[in-house]
Order: sequence, then C-alpha cells, then structure tokens
Amino acid sequence: VTALRAIVCGPASTAWIASGLLEKASEHLVSPSGRFLLVSSPGSAPAAERIRRSLHGRILLDLSIDDREEAKTLAAVERIAQAALEMGVRRDDAFVAVGGGVVSDIVGFTAAIVLRGIAWSVVPTTTGSMSDAAIGGKTGVDTKAGKNLIGAFHPPRAILIDPTALATLPERDFRAGLVEAFKAAWIADAALAQMAENSVAKVLERKEKELTELLAGSVAVKAAIVNEDLRESDRRRLLNFGHTLGHAFESAGQYQRLKHGEAVAWGIAAALEISARRAGLSAGDAGRIRTVLSALGPFPEPDRDPRVLASYLALDKKATARGVAGVLLEAIGRARIEESLPTEEWLDAARAARLS
Amino acid sequence: VTALRAIVCGPASTAWIASGLLEKASEHLVSPSGRFLLVSSPGSAPAAERIRRSLHGRILLDLSIDDREEAKTLAAVERIAQAALEMGVRRDDAFVAVGGGVVSDIVGFTAAIVLRGIAWSVVPTTTGSMSDAAIGGKTGVDTKAGKNLIGAFHPPRAILIDPTALATLPERDFRAGLVEAFKAAWIADAALAQMAENSVAKVLERKEKELTELLAGSVAVKAAIVNEDLRESDRRRLLNFGHTLGHAFESAGQYQRLKHGEAVAWGIAAALEISARRAGLSAGDAGRIRTVLSALGPFPEPDRDPRVLASYLALDKKATARGVAGVLLEAIGRARIEESLPTEEWLDAARAARLS
Repeated sequence: VTALRAIVCGPASTAWIASGLLEKASEHLVSPSGRFLLVSSPGSAPAAERIRRSLHGRILLDLSIDDREEAKTLAAVERIAQAALEMGVRRDDAFVAVGGGVVSDIVGFTAAIVLRGIAWSVVPTTTGSMSDAAIGGKTGVDTKAGKNLIGAFHPPRAILIDPTALATLPERDFRAGLVEAFKAAWIADAALAQMAENSVAKVLERKEKELTELLAGSVAVKAAIVNEDLRESDRRRLLNFGHTLGHAFESAGQYQRLKHGEAVAWGIAAALEISARRAGLSAGDAGRIRTVLSALGPFPEPDRDPRVLASYLALDKKATARGVAGVLLEAIGRARIEESLPTEEWLDAARAARLS
Repeated sequence: VTALRAIVCGPASTAWIASGLLEKASEHLVSPSGRFLLVSSPGSAPAAERIRRSLHGRILLDLSIDDREEAKTLAAVERIAQAALEMGVRRDDAFVAVGGGVVSDIVGFTAAIVLRGIAWSVVPTTTGSMSDAAIGGKTGVDTKAGKNLIGAFHPPRAILIDPTALATLPERDFRAGLVEAFKAAWIADAALAQMAENSVAKVLERKEKELTELLAGSVAVKAAIVNEDLRESDRRRLLNFGHTLGHAFESAGQYQRLKHGEAVAWGIAAALEISARRAGLSAGDAGRIRTVLSALGPFPEPDRDPRVLASYLALDKKATARGVAGVLLEAIGRARIEESLPTEEWLDAARAARLS
C-alpha cells in the first residue's frame, strides 16, 4: 500500500486513496452492524473479488448488476431492494457499490430508500467515478424524460479509491472518465490543472504516481465544494461545468453514441465558447483546455441538431422559465454560475464547439 | 372558517387546522414557483374539488390515483413521477397530496425523489391521516417483503386539516383512524386522553368541536415529538405504540382483513399485556384504554397464528439480532421504549390481546 490519503467529503463521508487499498477494504468500509451488501458490475469483478476476500464472512448479499446506462432504472433499484429485504437487511447494515458511476448511482439510491435509508460505501473502478460520480452524495436513476431525474442526496460513508483497480478498465472508458478529473481542476484549482496538463501523457500511460495525483486532486476539489454546500444551491453547481449541454449531447445520442465523459468534453468545449464571450476567458486558457481534451480524445462527434438539443435542455433540472443556468470559466481555476442563459445561446455554442 | 390553529411540525413544516380551511387552501399550500401538482384519491374527490377551486390556474398536473394499500408500490410512484416530468416539473414546483395515508405516503415519497426532492403539502381526508400519517415526514411504499420498507424522510411543507373534509368518510374508516388520534394522547398527553375519553360519543357523531379538539391535540403530540427528533432514533419511536404487532396483524391479513387503525388497536391491546407485566401499567389505565377501543370498534378479529406473526416480526424495521423493540405504557400519558423484546413475548401478547 502506498501512502494513504484521507479526504473529508462532507460531515459523514471520507475518501481514502492509495494503491493496494482494496486488500484492506474492511478497514475503511463502514457498516454499523458489521454486515455488508455487496453490489458490483461484471467489469468490476476483479475489484469485487479483492473486496470479498477482505470482508470474508461478513457479506449478507452479493449481487452483480447490469451497469449499462440503459439499466439505470427504478426497476433495477427495486430488484436490489427486494433482494436485500429478502435477505433480512436491517437498518444498521450497509451497502457497498463496486463499479462505475451507474453502479454507484443505482446502489446509492437503493441505500437511500431501503428502510428509509441505510449506510453505504463506494469503491469506484473507473476514472470517471473515482474523480466525480462517487463523491458528493448525488444518487439516482434515469427515466424516459431524461437522466438522473429521480434520485436522492445520500452521501456514501466511505469512498475507496485504489488506482490499481483501473488496470482492467477499457481504454475508451479510461480516457472518457479523465475528462471529469480535469474538469475539477479547471473550475477550481489552477495549480492542479497545470500539473495535470504537464503529466497528461504519463496519466494516459496509467503511471500510478501521476494518476494518483490527478485523482486525489480532483477528489479534493469536489470535496471542498461539497463541504461548503451539500445541496445544489450555489458553489456545488460549479461542478456542472460542461454538463448542461453534456447531458443534452448524451441524451441526443441515446446514451449509446457518447460515453458520459465524452459528452462532458463536448459540453466543456461548448461552454468555452460562451465563456469567451460572457466571462472573459482568454484564448490562451481555452486553447490549453482544448489541447488536453484533444490528448484525451479523439471523441466521437455529438448530435448537434438544435431541435433535438433544445428538447433536452428544456428538461434540465436547472431549467427555469427564463432559460437554463450554466457554468462559465473566467480563467483556468476560476468558474462562476450564469443564471438563465437563453436556450438560443446554448444551441449556438453547441454548433460552434470544437475540441482542437 | 372557525378559529385557525397553526402547529409547527419541524423546521419547515406547519399544520393548519380549521373548519372551512380547504376554501382557503391557496393561502397555506406552499410552492416556491406558485405551481402545484395535485394528486388525489377517488374518495377525496370532494376535497380535491374544493382545493382545485382555490388554486385555479396554478395546477400543472391533476391526477387521481388508486389509494388501496395494494396500490402503494414503487410502480405507482414511478407513474406519478413520469407524469410530472412529462409536464415539465421543475425544482421549485410542489406536489399536493389529497387523501388518506396511502396517498400521502405515495405522493410524499414521489416528491422526495423527483429531481432529487421537491416541496409538497398534504391535505389529509381521513381521521387516520389527519392525526398521524400526514405529520412527521415518513413517506414510502410497500414491497413484497412488507409495509413501508422503501421510502424517505421528507416532511410536507404544509398540512391542511379541515374536519369538514371528513363528512363523506365511510364510518369504518372514520372509526379506525381515530385509534391513531387516541394513541397520541395515550403515549404523551394524559389531559388530552381524559378529555377525548369523556367526549368519545360526540367524536363518533363527528361533532365538529370535539373532533377538532382531539385531532388538534393528537397533531400537537406528534409535532412535539417530531420537533425534538426528526429521525427515528429515540423519542419518535414512541409513536410506534401498537405498531409493532399492528404491522404484523395487518400483514397477516394481507392488508385486506384489517384497516391500519384496526390493526393498531389490536397492537395496542397486545402492548397493554406486556406493559402491565414490564412497565407497571395499572389495570385501571389498561381498562380505560380498552373501553375507548371498544367504543371505537367493534374491530374484526386478527390472525393470531404465531408462525405467521413471527415471520412478519422478523421483517420489522426495528428488529435486531436480539429481538424487536417495542413501546410500552407506564401510565396513560407516559410511554417508553423497550429495546429487544423477545419474539416469544410478542407472540404471547398477541394471543392474549383483547379489546374489552
């Protein structure tokens, strides 16, 4: 185990970061009763097996679930809840989610509503979930009307980040998820952005040191924001940088064409256009960001049909009668909220967005 | 409108009590946007119509739902959520639930998870929901494994109690729901218990003055407890008086044989047996309670099969490895929690329970 880092992510949530952490999972996973309900994805089987060994004899339920975006439904939540209830889950038991963002969204939401809420921990196994999805307590599922429209705020008690769990992650997922890690740096930490920019080649080679620095840095950014604002009223919304159009791009592609991180990359590229015009973002900073996004790519082209995108923007949770709120970058490391950006302006930016 | 009473039920929740209140519903229902999603049951149609007139032009969605216990499912929640999302619900909109406990449980839980939580208010139209179900923020649905095993704590912003809404309530529902009102008095307010005991005949005739006094008193008891303890860690559990076996009786009858309040009446009768033995409850106080329960009844006989009841007790949310927690009465107006009562003792009490 390399040096263990602990980052406080809210009043009852701690992220632990170290290589080889999964062999010591039982030291950090939290269950008041000592009993765990393990839920993992097929792709995270090696990580799940490491955790299983660490928790031997304390696992009440052991489920593998479909972790494709289209499986992120209320029906999936109900199946897990039923299985837990049939095994006699009690209020002092705890879930452990092992996988990417879909698994943590589903399992976290299940933990939020089984017996009106029990504890859970998460072991992210993708770059995207290590740097973003697993932290902060947003959980939920998709509906016909859009992504994450049903859910709860229910922070995990522990987040175990072990970069060695990324060894088997497919290249495309690995790269897409790094967009979220860089996003954290861009909105709030200029020094981290500079460092990660310099080491992007080594990060892409999955060099443990550089990867850990970037992941730990992005977790620290997210934790700092979440610590001052658990709900989504103010600072926390900065984390949505690239997500307003990102979600629309992702929906427009039926969650098939683009990975979440890829859609966010395009959403960031679009936000750079608006940021240059409205928030004084320099051409130099925008160029640096595009250079990193290019290095992480290439990413598939999104559907830019304005009629399609407009219909999804209207469904955005941040939509009000006057437009859709967005996050603009003033400079690398400094972001702000813009309330009620007109839909037309979003659509123009979607048309103009470029990654190089 | 008779004298308006306001009772604070937690940090963001107020109960309003008056005859004729529904004509002034718009003055008390809370929606940040001013828009409402109205969900009612067939039996509450007259009350819903009074509210509709008061909210004219501000209703985004108007749904009638099945309010039988067997319809209290996650699927029902998803249907309402879908309908709300299709109508373009936003975070600053609010639900209004009009009906009995099933409606408030379903709608409150829907409000808890749509867009990760929006505001809601409730207009209870049964004695049970006026005195208990609508207050305190417990929401949820049933599963194959038992009642209310999936849900959330999500208090309504406003609770509008208008005794005139009870005019069309069937007699059996009216009587069963009063058990919850008396329960509140018995656990925490000896003076209210004495007053309500003296006026039980007039309450059963639905005399407005006596009914309002009892309902307001029971809301005040519940509010006082909820105010000191939003979650279920300590004092709040006193409200479960009669509910441990009550839920088991209700489940054993497949929610068909007994109304919720009727099952609680039998649960209280059983708890009196244990209270006499363990908590020093006098024969006089137990007799007074049985006299009231007899007056509210007669209630159908429960299924007392110990094997059946034991299987449901094991699923109780308050179950631990050492037994099932329960609420015992030391005297009328004074209750306490007993942790881990052995299942055998519960089953003996179920056998011995009597209402006269």
